Amino acid sequence: MAVKALYFSERDGQDMALKNPEKMLFANKADADARDKMLELSEEILMFLKSKVDGLSEEHAEQCALAIAEERDLFLRALKKPSLLNQEAEAESE
Amino acid sequence: MAVKALYFSERDGQDMALKNPEKMLFANKADADARDKMLELSEEILMFLKSKVDGLSEEHAEQCALAIAEERDLFLRALKKPSLLNQEAEAESE
Repeated sequence: MAVKALYFSERDGQDMALKNPEKMLFANKADADARDKMLELSEEILMFLKSKVDGLSEEHAEQCALAIAEERDLFLRALKKPSLLNQEAEAESE
Repeated sequence: MAVKALYFSERDGQDMALKNPEKMLFANKADADARDKMLELSEEILMFLKSKVDGLSEEHAEQCALAIAEERDLFLRALKKPSLLNQEAEAESE
């Protein structure tokens, strides 16, 4: 039988990836790369928010950073056209 | 004598603008427009973060949103190249 590979981001680490395979374990390298890039962005946003906002907890800073990093493409468009950012959420709530 | 105009964003409101003239009162319309656009972006980011992060206080959500909106151009670049986001802060701390 052939050998198959599974990929994960070192930013998640093997333990976490094995505990959360549906989100952190990938059959192809490109998806793992994409997650790794998203996590890198999230780490930078976390540092940025903690440096700018006094008293923001690590947990909240991490959740804010991840929420933005996971919606990177939407955020890119929204920085140019702010009304886009919450359009989907507003549509769902109607 | 000629009449001169002062401009402020309605998102700040007249009272706040008069209390914080150096930040919210402008001799030219373009600067007031720029502030208004930044505040619009900040409001959208505030709504986005509050919808995504449970328990995030209004104050922290507002400070995170404003920090991002005030660094809009840097954020645009950082979404494509994350390491840019904290470069200035790191350079200052060296």
